Amino acid sequence: MEITTKLKPVLKKFMDVRAHSEEICQPLEIEDYVVQPIVDVSPPKWHLGHTTWFFETFILLPNFPSYEVFDPQYNFVFNSYYETIGARVIRTDRGNLSRPSVSDVYRYRKYIDEKMTEFLNSHHMSNEILPLLELGLNHEQQHQELLITDIKYILGHNPLFPAYKKEIKKEEYGNSEKRMLHFSEGIYEIGFEGPGFCFDNEMGKHKVYLNDFAISDHLVTNGEYLEFMDAGGYSDFRYWHADGWNWLKENNAQSPLYWHKIDGKWMYYTLSGLQEIDPDEELSHISFYEASAYAAWRGMRLPTEQEWEAASSCFPWGKRWEWTNSAYLPYPGFKKEPGAVGEYNGKFMVNQMVLRGASVATPPGHSRFTYRNFFQPELKWQFTGIRLAK
Amino acid sequence: MEITTKLKPVLKKFMDVRAHSEEICQPLEIEDYVVQPIVDVSPPKWHLGHTTWFFETFILLPNFPSYEVFDPQYNFVFNSYYETIGARVIRTDRGNLSRPSVSDVYRYRKYIDEKMTEFLNSHHMSNEILPLLELGLNHEQQHQELLITDIKYILGHNPLFPAYKKEIKKEEYGNSEKRMLHFSEGIYEIGFEGPGFCFDNEMGKHKVYLNDFAISDHLVTNGEYLEFMDAGGYSDFRYWHADGWNWLKENNAQSPLYWHKIDGKWMYYTLSGLQEIDPDEELSHISFYEASAYAAWRGMRLPTEQEWEAASSCFPWGKRWEWTNSAYLPYPGFKKEPGAVGEYNGKFMVNQMVLRGASVATPPGHSRFTYRNFFQPELKWQFTGIRLAK
Amino acid sequence: MEITTKLKPVLKKFMDVRAHSEEICQPLEIEDYVVQPIVDVSPPKWHLGHTTWFFETFILLPNFPSYEVFDPQYNFVFNSYYETIGARVIRTDRGNLSRPSVSDVYRYRKYIDEKMTEFLNSHHMSNEILPLLELGLNHEQQHQELLITDIKYILGHNPLFPAYKKEIKKEEYGNSEKRMLHFSEGIYEIGFEGPGFCFDNEMGKHKVYLNDFAISDHLVTNGEYLEFMDAGGYSDFRYWHADGWNWLKENNAQSPLYWHKIDGKWMYYTLSGLQEIDPDEELSHISFYEASAYAAWRGMRLPTEQEWEAASSCFPWGKRWEWTNSAYLPYPGFKKEPGAVGEYNGKFMVNQMVLRGASVATPPGHSRFTYRNFFQPELKWQFTGIRLAK
Amino acid sequence: MEITTKLKPVLKKFMDVRAHSEEICQPLEIEDYVVQPIVDVSPPKWHLGHTTWFFETFILLPNFPSYEVFDPQYNFVFNSYYETIGARVIRTDRGNLSRPSVSDVYRYRKYIDEKMTEFLNSHHMSNEILPLLELGLNHEQQHQELLITDIKYILGHNPLFPAYKKEIKKEEYGNSEKRMLHFSEGIYEIGFEGPGFCFDNEMGKHKVYLNDFAISDHLVTNGEYLEFMDAGGYSDFRYWHADGWNWLKENNAQSPLYWHKIDGKWMYYTLSGLQEIDPDEELSHISFYEASAYAAWRGMRLPTEQEWEAASSCFPWGKRWEWTNSAYLPYPGFKKEPGAVGEYNGKFMVNQMVLRGASVATPPGHSRFTYRNFFQPELKWQFTGIRLAK
Repeated sequence: MEITTKLKPVLKKFMDVRAHSEEICQPLEIEDYVVQPIVDVSPPKWHLGHTTWFFETFILLPNFPSYEVFDPQYNFVFNSYYETIGARVIRTDRGNLSRPSVSDVYRYRKYIDEKMTEFLNSHHMSNEILPLLELGLNHEQQHQELLITDIKYILGHNPLFPAYKKEIKKEEYGNSEKRMLHFSEGIYEIGFEGPGFCFDNEMGKHKVYLNDFAISDHLVTNGEYLEFMDAGGYSDFRYWHADGWNWLKENNAQSPLYWHKIDGKWMYYTLSGLQEIDPDEELSHISFYEASAYAAWRGMRLPTEQEWEAASSCFPWGKRWEWTNSAYLPYPGFKKEPGAVGEYNGKFMVNQMVLRGASVATPPGHSRFTYRNFFQPELKWQFTGIRLAK
Repeated sequence: MEITTKLKPVLKKFMDVRAHSEEICQPLEIEDYVVQPIVDVSPPKWHLGHTTWFFETFILLPNFPSYEVFDPQYNFVFNSYYETIGARVIRTDRGNLSRPSVSDVYRYRKYIDEKMTEFLNSHHMSNEILPLLELGLNHEQQHQELLITDIKYILGHNPLFPAYKKEIKKEEYGNSEKRMLHFSEGIYEIGFEGPGFCFDNEMGKHKVYLNDFAISDHLVTNGEYLEFMDAGGYSDFRYWHADGWNWLKENNAQSPLYWHKIDGKWMYYTLSGLQEIDPDEELSHISFYEASAYAAWRGMRLPTEQEWEAASSCFPWGKRWEWTNSAYLPYPGFKKEPGAVGEYNGKFMVNQMVLRGASVATPPGHSRFTYRNFFQPELKWQFTGIRLAK
Repeated sequence: MEITTKLKPVLKKFMDVRAHSEEICQPLEIEDYVVQPIVDVSPPKWHLGHTTWFFETFILLPNFPSYEVFDPQYNFVFNSYYETIGARVIRTDRGNLSRPSVSDVYRYRKYIDEKMTEFLNSHHMSNEILPLLELGLNHEQQHQELLITDIKYILGHNPLFPAYKKEIKKEEYGNSEKRMLHFSEGIYEIGFEGPGFCFDNEMGKHKVYLNDFAISDHLVTNGEYLEFMDAGGYSDFRYWHADGWNWLKENNAQSPLYWHKIDGKWMYYTLSGLQEIDPDEELSHISFYEASAYAAWRGMRLPTEQEWEAASSCFPWGKRWEWTNSAYLPYPGFKKEPGAVGEYNGKFMVNQMVLRGASVATPPGHSRFTYRNFFQPELKWQFTGIRLAK
Repeated sequence: MEITTKLKPVLKKFMDVRAHSEEICQPLEIEDYVVQPIVDVSPPKWHLGHTTWFFETFILLPNFPSYEVFDPQYNFVFNSYYETIGARVIRTDRGNLSRPSVSDVYRYRKYIDEKMTEFLNSHHMSNEILPLLELGLNHEQQHQELLITDIKYILGHNPLFPAYKKEIKKEEYGNSEKRMLHFSEGIYEIGFEGPGFCFDNEMGKHKVYLNDFAISDHLVTNGEYLEFMDAGGYSDFRYWHADGWNWLKENNAQSPLYWHKIDGKWMYYTLSGLQEIDPDEELSHISFYEASAYAAWRGMRLPTEQEWEAASSCFPWGKRWEWTNSAYLPYPGFKKEPGAVGEYNGKFMVNQMVLRGASVATPPGHSRFTYRNFFQPELKWQFTGIRLAK
């Protein structure tokens, strides 16, 4: 029968994604699961619970008749921002909750995984549910990236600088010479076209008209950024947006996140602990404001997201989320879906900038050249980097 | 000689623009010149001084050898945000300064007007200075619009609701039926192309590719907006951006600015005082968030600035600054000019939305269909309105 | 008849006090009446209106049958903090009101003065109203002191440093040697005992038991305080309360208010303009935290208000409000009066410190050795000084 | 020899106090040790580490030559507010630290306990160290009370309302009738007089003169306080200090802490979980502002700390910390001790109110009738209550 043959790989995919979240947390102490040092960083146990709540709320509850809720209070605790789904713990309070305990959360995951397995093997499962399941899995993959960046923040802001894993194999960097790639004026096509999964904000393949542009085939390195710092880039307002300059002064920003000048030497916190800066590594953990100021100092600019997408087949990408100079706005013809799923992307389409590519923290199989990541311009705790254009 | 024949109209233009600023302030009490009820609203005397300082600092000082500064302290008081030009009174403190007095500021204006007349008639004047002079005059015209909106705010937030002028002739509204105008997919040209003056952010005429779109030939009226309010638009999160919903709750936003429900009836403060709402008048004083929520409630959207510009010859405009769904970003090839003039527009190109058109407060001769106005999405003290698209 | 013979001096007292408020404002520009640079400093026109509103609200309205309110909106504008009397402009917004204009406020004063004269000469006046009248006059005298300190703040925080009056005769300082006056352990009597006016917080003469103490017969001078500053007093936490140390760091406090180090020399703003520090003058404009830290650095302490009062007949006082180490609390048997008058003092009896004495800004005839002034410990815009004890 | 005979009980006392802290934490999950929901509430693991750090820093390091620091980073983590001892984690960040882990902290405690045992048995121990040891033990007892109040806050603000212990024996309340006890005007003696331990703020027995007063022999009950709430006490400004009224409005205070109106019935969170209010139980968890407003509503007042101490032998006390109307100020002759120990009490003597008595959370043997507890007037997470006076 058609359904069951389809179900097997779906179930395997489900179990793989679910297991990967727990693997990411495997090196943690129980205490590391609990804290929330800044509002943007959620406690790891919250990520584990929230992604589980997603399957419970959007798949099991409405579709699996025999399903019994694990704990009726968890909706309040693990809802993130879905107004449709009712009251919730406000985001800044996530780090104040010692309960549910970490073991409660793992029991919750186990319960949901068992129920989902039952459900996916049952006659209640149907092709119509597949898109929602895929959304749930992609949602969990997004939180896997956040788990890594949030764990890095939690450990990297602890005065003891504990390592996440002692041995992390460093990615190699391509050694070829840097070049600017040139593209000609004209009409290009942008946006996702099936088959396969994408988020609603990528949909609606459409034509754009681009002017001549050039884009680098390499990311900016730590060494190149140090030149900007040494040249006084953080104290010359001419390179900065007005908002960026205010942000710099209010936060006394002087370097990428995780950088510390110790005994006259620049060090940075990595997931393996505190290390000396590697000048050849791709720069990471900078805000849009810093990316933009760096580009201005080089006499260049950041690419637009359309330029990036049009050129993306011509350079390697995937180590850093690359800030573009595009605001996060709807594609032509974008429509919010009805219900809670419609809150996924559309309501954030103001005051944020688009990032393209993917990063070392992105789970395998979760990146696409049409993927639109987005964050407020001051945030720097993701693995963000710079690709220059002109 | 070529220069003098050119100068005469320039001098007349100069005197006309300068006189218009003072005409706007003519109905004010001295006290009205001084206060700053919110950070966005500057005291009228500050506008009068700041526009004057612009001519002193950028034209007279560098170009007129015999020029003597009126008061060396005024640079500190009347510089707005030009980092290039040195220290300045911070923006939030403008309303704390009782001195220079209003009569001092008028003496300052008189002194600069005389010196400018001398200069424009002297052999120091040259064609190269003309663009700077034009920038200074357009700058003063922008502040004329701010003078009106800021005076309205100052008087409209006073518990006595004093009128600015008792008799203001109301603009007539066109009575024809509302229609959606349809435009076909294809390449359009956007941006300013001479001759004449424009700001740097309009420059670089360039091609864009637009999809099929439709745009209204009328602005939304108070009566139409009341339908949204009566339908519970301010209490249904589904129509709002996440940032807009937070803004609404934090500010308890429930209506356009200047609207008051008094004894069960909606009234608004106008420059002639408190009046009953006119349902046929074009809606004004709403934020981008409200504009966007209204459009969503109607099942429509706001136009992009490119759509607006492409269609602008087919409908009347000029009564309200119309929020678009475009973030304020550089046009292809945009370059900041060197020096303080380069701070005019470029450094604001993040976190703001574009408004197109002009308003009842825009001085005559200061509007263009390529003009890009821009404000943060929560601001509503300008004469802002809504044109729907889909 | 008894009443009329009593009334004549009462009327003269009324007219004298009322005239003195206007004399204080005589050197001001209209603009100076309007601004409110910090929440503690009210616009001079507000003081002029508020003291007038006091007579209108508490005397004329309830007692003078023919009285017609000057403007029904003024209650909203000029009520300060009397919850009993209804809604009011919030304190931080006083500087946002350009209307009523200064001339409106003077017309208001003239109207009330005329009505009060009529009233005081009418048969509606009675002995029972005298205490309220006295309260109103003492209230206005308190605001006369605030007028001076607030004008000083407004002009002294203007970047042009305008003088209030060019020629202010400097008070002479006593030149005799400083001595500590010694008092013996035992019972002392504290508090006001008639006849004459006092505030409710001074009432209830009562016994206290004091230990041996010594108190200086001089105030600390600028020169002595400079020794503390030069010895690093502002950077040694050991002399400071924990709250004071936080306050110092948050506000970067480094000197008394109005002091500026210009070209390596300490200057201060006086009502005659910017001048070099006079080392022999009594120190002024320091917070309780600074007073307390200075005393600790000298190995001394501040007196309690009981010690101050017990000793006050043995030293000259009246140039500076002297911080004591007494919190502002009720005397034994203190009772709030019913109605709005009961809000005068009692509700502030927490989180404030008592100051004793009077200052150069206190109007003649308004000081008593039982007078209890009180302010939050961080405030320094009053003419506050230090007398040491041990 | 004298020393060893003295040491044995000292060592037993040390071990008893140290063990009691760990007993208090015995019912906790690891996650409960980590969080800090408000700045006043510290994570339990921080209390356990900080009290340990006190012995390490003030006894072992300066006095035990062979002592090796457990971890040099811990000073930064576990210093609370001692400026003398160097940099420290700011108080608001304590809940952001997942490391040191709970097991690390227990290892730290074990290490210090062993070293302290060695030290107390060694010839390095001397009578001079006894006062410091006693201070350390009393310090840990103070933190035992905070451990209980902070655990209550952490669990009581969790949406799951977990119980700390299911079975907590409720204290009985005395059932005799309430009476006012009357005391006559005259001289009383206040303050600690040896032998035995007291804090420096209790020292200096001294005479005070008190007027006639009466004080209740019972604490206010929940039922009595409900009468105040039902009578609209929280919405009538006349009973409140001005600061209290602002606090009430800003925080929307409507009841004691931990009270919830659920389905029309008042419930409160207790250490055994959510329960119905017991009207006969002594009221707890109210701010000074609420205590003061309640007393005013009853036509009474709070006692001063001197009245409380003078009368304390005539009524039972020890279930609630009782707010007094005395500000926390130095006793006559108070002197800060030199060094870090001098930071213990003196620097907080401004802006706080005195509480007298003790509470159900006070460890046995830690209360005295001369004990001066102190907190800011808005705080209510301690077991605070009301005793009326007049």
